[in-house]
Amino acid sequence: MKMSKMYMPTLKEDPSEAEIASHKLLLRSGMIRQLVSGVYSYLPLGYRVIRKVEQIVREEMDVAGSQELLMSPIQPRELWEATGRWANFGPEMFTLLDRNSREFCLGPTHEEYITDLIKNEVKSYKQLPLNLYQIQTKYRDEKRPRFGLMRGREFIMKDAYSFDVDEEAMIRAYDIMWKSYDKAFTRLNLKYKVVEGDTGAMGGRVSHEFMAMSEAGEGFMAYCEACDYAATDEKATVVYNVENSNQEELPLEKVLTENVTTIEGLEDFFKIDKSSFGKALVYSVKGKPLVVVIPGDRELNEIKLENYLEISSHDIEMADEEMIIDITGANKGFTGPVGLKEGTRLLVDSRIKDMKNLIVGGNETDIHLKNVNYGRDFQGEVVEDLLMIRDGDICPKCDEKLKMARGIEVGNIFQLGTKYSEGIGAKYLDENGKEKYFVMGSYGIGITRTVAAIIEQSHDENGIIWPLNVAPYEVIITVINTKDEEQMNLSQNIYDELAKKGVEVLLDDRKERAGVKFNDRDLIGIPIRIVVGKGAADGMVEYSLRKTGEKEDINVNDLIKIIEEEFKNNGMAFKS
Amino acid sequence: MKMSKMYMPTLKEDPSEAEIASHKLLLRSGMIRQLVSGVYSYLPLGYRVIRKVEQIVREEMDVAGSQELLMSPIQPRELWEATGRWANFGPEMFTLLDRNSREFCLGPTHEEYITDLIKNEVKSYKQLPLNLYQIQTKYRDEKRPRFGLMRGREFIMKDAYSFDVDEEAMIRAYDIMWKSYDKAFTRLNLKYKVVEGDTGAMGGRVSHEFMAMSEAGEGFMAYCEACDYAATDEKATVVYNVENSNQEELPLEKVLTENVTTIEGLEDFFKIDKSSFGKALVYSVKGKPLVVVIPGDRELNEIKLENYLEISSHDIEMADEEMIIDITGANKGFTGPVGLKEGTRLLVDSRIKDMKNLIVGGNETDIHLKNVNYGRDFQGEVVEDLLMIRDGDICPKCDEKLKMARGIEVGNIFQLGTKYSEGIGAKYLDENGKEKYFVMGSYGIGITRTVAAIIEQSHDENGIIWPLNVAPYEVIITVINTKDEEQMNLSQNIYDELAKKGVEVLLDDRKERAGVKFNDRDLIGIPIRIVVGKGAADGMVEYSLRKTGEKEDINVNDLIKIIEEEFKNNGMAFKS
Repeated sequence: MKMSKMYMPTLKEDPSEAEIASHKLLLRSGMIRQLVSGVYSYLPLGYRVIRKVEQIVREEMDVAGSQELLMSPIQPRELWEATGRWANFGPEMFTLLDRNSREFCLGPTHEEYITDLIKNEVKSYKQLPLNLYQIQTKYRDEKRPRFGLMRGREFIMKDAYSFDVDEEAMIRAYDIMWKSYDKAFTRLNLKYKVVEGDTGAMGGRVSHEFMAMSEAGEGFMAYCEACDYAATDEKATVVYNVENSNQEELPLEKVLTENVTTIEGLEDFFKIDKSSFGKALVYSVKGKPLVVVIPGDRELNEIKLENYLEISSHDIEMADEEMIIDITGANKGFTGPVGLKEGTRLLVDSRIKDMKNLIVGGNETDIHLKNVNYGRDFQGEVVEDLLMIRDGDICPKCDEKLKMARGIEVGNIFQLGTKYSEGIGAKYLDENGKEKYFVMGSYGIGITRTVAAIIEQSHDENGIIWPLNVAPYEVIITVINTKDEEQMNLSQNIYDELAKKGVEVLLDDRKERAGVKFNDRDLIGIPIRIVVGKGAADGMVEYSLRKTGEKEDINVNDLIKIIEEEFKNNGMAFKS
Repeated sequence: MKMSKMYMPTLKEDPSEAEIASHKLLLRSGMIRQLVSGVYSYLPLGYRVIRKVEQIVREEMDVAGSQELLMSPIQPRELWEATGRWANFGPEMFTLLDRNSREFCLGPTHEEYITDLIKNEVKSYKQLPLNLYQIQTKYRDEKRPRFGLMRGREFIMKDAYSFDVDEEAMIRAYDIMWKSYDKAFTRLNLKYKVVEGDTGAMGGRVSHEFMAMSEAGEGFMAYCEACDYAATDEKATVVYNVENSNQEELPLEKVLTENVTTIEGLEDFFKIDKSSFGKALVYSVKGKPLVVVIPGDRELNEIKLENYLEISSHDIEMADEEMIIDITGANKGFTGPVGLKEGTRLLVDSRIKDMKNLIVGGNETDIHLKNVNYGRDFQGEVVEDLLMIRDGDICPKCDEKLKMARGIEVGNIFQLGTKYSEGIGAKYLDENGKEKYFVMGSYGIGITRTVAAIIEQSHDENGIIWPLNVAPYEVIITVINTKDEEQMNLSQNIYDELAKKGVEVLLDDRKERAGVKFNDRDLIGIPIRIVVGKGAADGMVEYSLRKTGEKEDINVNDLIKIIEEEFKNNGMAFKS
């Protein structure tokens, strides 16, 4: 492609709305443009990268025996009602009515749809296992779309679904997908970790997330360097050793704690560590009050809470002052588990049960209670683990200390079981002619998010550093002086020769200063660079790689060989 | 691909809902499935064909210098308001609100969007010409979706947009696209005609449609075999010679025509040819009455009427009885141009002006008027041509007789001019630093409809006959007896050898009767067929092509050469 004809609207400055590198660079390099919040147009250079990432994922899915199809993004409401997910997704879903007032959503995912699709077509165990995938634009009306391609309201995803006869076969399918993802993300040059994930609204018990390591990621993971334990912060099991469980239970005391309403304030007031307190949080769940008590030195994990309650995140919010006053009889800051208004639901993290002589809010303004003990002074629903993991926590597998890191969730895999086949009523006949529900798995890769992750892991202050196999073009030839016939001819010859070999080449023949061309070249991140300047007269060109920047003057006759070598270094070959 | 593992839910019977061959065969061969009316899932075999058609179109677009990008299907209402097309599309558009109650449509096309996209990015004549395209799912909430992929509410389209400095440059871009379409449709093996089209809601003056010849098509075209004139029935200019324009104007007469309300009835009553009558049609246009008078022997062309009125099809309907009585004072069937209620808008086809002594409705129940003459007895807005073309009409270019044929509109190209750049306010600076509106063109190819058109033109009673370059697989190996090790081994060897050469092969290793396999093979239309049966022991296989069916016993050693030859016959080569 001649750059004089290319649509590549680069920007000189970082756009003010962009916070992270991938967002800035995708905008600056003219690869994407925002239409409305969280919705992007993929411009020619950017779309070439997207298509290459798609193709790598497609190849690995095909090798793994998954078959590509394409479903509609439009999905009838009835299907989602059948599994209870219509309400579950709530405002996160774009919905629409057709001219006959039939209601649809724009699919955020396709479990219901595909289960319905195969429902009457796959009838026998002989047709199993089956694994189908698609690469398609998905929709999620995020409350806070942000970070460019990282969290959009519209994004391209590869989603696959497996159908099996039983749990064991499903786990085999799951393992095949896991390996396939490993191969895809390795080919995509990503540094990533596979971590246990929360299954959330998806259902099923087991899931894993593929997290590309990045400080720009919105995901947190806890991992152990001594063993292979790794989980998202939402999922990670918190080991919390109660130190004083053998202490004697002391008599309950009321303490005047005027205006002391925070854990920090109490620490100060009582001159005692946070871990001696019981922290009570008040929520409104579908309009009803809920009090949760956890150790004072920890944060509540809302995902664990939602999972326990079997609700979705838009069913729950912090209670307002009025509700707090109603159930405690006290101002905010003095809530505790003892003496709540009758009928108030109370959840207790299991560790609270063993902690002796807690200090908690007194349900009376300016009052706290000392020496409060579970069983003797209050009771509630005990929940195994409602705590958020943190750096330095004990590994639940090997007792070493966990580390925390941030990552970008580029893939996820779910063992769904029969949630969807039961909801939709999709059955097959087994060897004995007995009807059984399909046992399913579902597997996603965020294509556009992967593009962002690659950039987060591979860029410098001048721009993107594309791996060769996903670069929009593989080679760029910069002509220093386009008025110099010798330079233009040599450039054209190199261009033609490379194009003939199926190499994707850009020829920067724009009538711009060399500095502008070099800046754009760095910005858009083309891996292999050739500069044709004064040396053209002697058949000499400058050769360098984007990733090292080391320049070398080479004879044009050696060029093809050197480039071919670089292709080999990247596990690639010329196409023709 | 081994067919024992392939998801290919074929049907033995024609589905009752399908009327035309492509719809029946796509369903029967397990290539598509309907989700809801007019919305389909593309199953693995079908999606392979779609992707191949996409790729051929993509290659021709790239060669023509168009650059691929991908825009969002979601488009904000404001953009469409800016060009007046929001109301224009009306109920044909799927619309939705996001969580902030902002209104969007699912794009039926992208003129507004792309004009807005380049608006602030392309600023100078130096950046022109520019041509951008995408391949994407489009939405149109059709009143009567039908015929499978022929007229869906969702369909895959390639749409391209050109931006130029002036009319002349736009015409150059238009011609390039025209040639590119010729190349694409020729590669796709379609028999087609390029015909003048109506620009309709798209705007601009000139457009052409690429019509695949087919009796199943919904489009009608008039064409001349003597010259190159060809146009859609909506667009074709009607040449209508008024025979009696020199006749003397006779005195107006009232005639009692009790219960005679149709042209046929009048013909009978007056014993005179239809062409002597003036036919008055009453419409309600946005709730207001409109009377149109045309020659009694012709049909009105509603598209020409809508274009003249600058309205869209959902702004107009036949008037009801009440409206007719109100403006004529008479029952339905007696409407005429003379003595309509004051203020009633009256359109007159230009031919009516020259026709002498017409018979028309009397605007009085059971009364017609004889010897009515334009100018003397009534006046109205004279419109050049409101008539529908018909077989045998005179060619407007060469005076020969026109023929009519049906076709499937697989592509269209539009010279848009500045309608969209003016609406959106998209300007560039010319050589003199003066702001000017981009002069645009827009160019569509219906990808999924093209798939249907290929089938309509290429099938027999047993199934689809795919051209080699769009077939889901190129070669199929049918194993007669899968329990015979020799047959299985030989099949596997052929399969491996072909796969190594990049040939897309199906191996029918299913434990089915040979008859079932042969039926499926014909149904799904794989072009090159190999049968491995008893001859396997002697290294002999049966070879045939789907299109001829002629069988040949050949030695397995000659197979690759013969298949390679067949690839060459189709202008193709092995991939590796």
